[in-house]
Amino acid sequence: MTQRQAEDETHPSSAELFTRAVALLTTQGDLRVWSVIISIFGDLALNRDDVITGALLTRLTTLMGLKPEAVRVALFRLRRDGWITSRKSGRSSAYRLTDMGFGETQAARARIYAPSLPEPESWQLLVSRPMVQAARAQDEKTLQEQGFHVVGPGIYLGASDLPAGDDFLAIDGQITRLPDWLRVSMPPEGLEQGFADLCARLRDLTSLLDGAPAALDATERATLRVLIVHHWRRLLLRQPDLPDRFFPDGWPGVACRARVMGLLEQLDRPSLASLQDSPG
Amino acid sequence: MTQRQAEDETHPSSAELFTRAVALLTTQGDLRVWSVIISIFGDLALNRDDVITGALLTRLTTLMGLKPEAVRVALFRLRRDGWITSRKSGRSSAYRLTDMGFGETQAARARIYAPSLPEPESWQLLVSRPMVQAARAQDEKTLQEQGFHVVGPGIYLGASDLPAGDDFLAIDGQITRLPDWLRVSMPPEGLEQGFADLCARLRDLTSLLDGAPAALDATERATLRVLIVHHWRRLLLRQPDLPDRFFPDGWPGVACRARVMGLLEQLDRPSLASLQDSPG
Repeated sequence: MTQRQAEDETHPSSAELFTRAVALLTTQGDLRVWSVIISIFGDLALNRDDVITGALLTRLTTLMGLKPEAVRVALFRLRRDGWITSRKSGRSSAYRLTDMGFGETQAARARIYAPSLPEPESWQLLVSRPMVQAARAQDEKTLQEQGFHVVGPGIYLGASDLPAGDDFLAIDGQITRLPDWLRVSMPPEGLEQGFADLCARLRDLTSLLDGAPAALDATERATLRVLIVHHWRRLLLRQPDLPDRFFPDGWPGVACRARVMGLLEQLDRPSLASLQDSPG
Repeated sequence: MTQRQAEDETHPSSAELFTRAVALLTTQGDLRVWSVIISIFGDLALNRDDVITGALLTRLTTLMGLKPEAVRVALFRLRRDGWITSRKSGRSSAYRLTDMGFGETQAARARIYAPSLPEPESWQLLVSRPMVQAARAQDEKTLQEQGFHVVGPGIYLGASDLPAGDDFLAIDGQITRLPDWLRVSMPPEGLEQGFADLCARLRDLTSLLDGAPAALDATERATLRVLIVHHWRRLLLRQPDLPDRFFPDGWPGVACRARVMGLLEQLDRPSLASLQDSPG
């Protein structure tokens, strides 16, 4: 008899609650396993030296319904691509993020957990010299990597403290008008539907957990947190990193963010130590 | 014997000086007579109710070497186009600017006599929605009339207190970088050569008048002033109304402005009353 089953008998309603909660966050299927593992590190390994044991990874991914073989392949791939390193100690393995992996999750965390997006103190708008399409595409790539947003051909918007080349006309100040045509053009195709779907599922999850999260154990809370963060970040990081007013009225990303923040507060983050100490 | 000739005999060097000065300002030929007459009103008729007699117009235009028939045609044309009105009083005529004519000269005066171009406290940069060429051309026309400058397709720069439509992305602040490609693109074709030519003539005129303007009478001073203002405004008003830093390094309009201001100060403006009272 596993710990899981033992708990089911003492708290049957809690087990049912968790099963239904996980179902709400996995029925859309197609969880990319390597990406889920990054979400696990991103939500739980907050310090540079944090290590996650193979046992804990197995426990969490199993609760999400992922297959052990798929997890093994994903871990291999993440090691090969320089995201994580592993260390054997007897029969058990331990994983940690590489510098690159930690840097990436750290950078994304600033966006993922932000309860709201404050305006930068001031903005800069850059206008490039006239140029052919191919050269402009190169500029767009470079500037987007630096944190700028393309608002028209050869026109870039960013916080005023971002570095930019000398060859642009640059104005530094406040955005005083944000017309509808621009706000509608900001999010990429399909993102609105994605946020609306997630928002509906998170609304159901909120109702389901209403008053009940105390009944979930640390591993269950971690599992749900990771799934929420996973879905949220995969949509959020496709959206330009701009305050809400840059998006269309009623943009579902806004409601979605509120749901995510509310749920993550309810499902408070267990420490890695408490999770690793739990019986697997 | 005319007054002119009488003066030549008492002050031969003064007459010679004036002849050479006028030559410096008229040898390029092609003075458009109607435009010169507007320059006369612009420099001398500073008050809404100022009247210039036909006799004074004849005296000034004759000293510039313009033909009486050409002046008559120009006056007819200016009346027909709503710039001036005329009133007969016995055998003499008197001319004054219409409301439109006064408004236009008044508006131009602010630019023509400005010793330097201060930066507005802040600028606004507008970005229009994507649109077809024809619609953009219409926008450009409207916005240029409102005082904006086109800095790229669908991109407009103006002082931040100019009114602009709600359909633009607008940022309000300071211009922090003005790249060479933009400064070179600001002046229209041919303007640099025009300023350089005028600058050279004004330099010669400054040498010629050096220490001598006291020898010129009021009508002569008025004649030279009008010619200087005339050439200056015809170039200046083709240049975008922007501070010097928006133009290429060494832009001859800057040196030209300094010459114009120096000469207009030397050739201080006679009052209309003193000019009309002078014997014709």
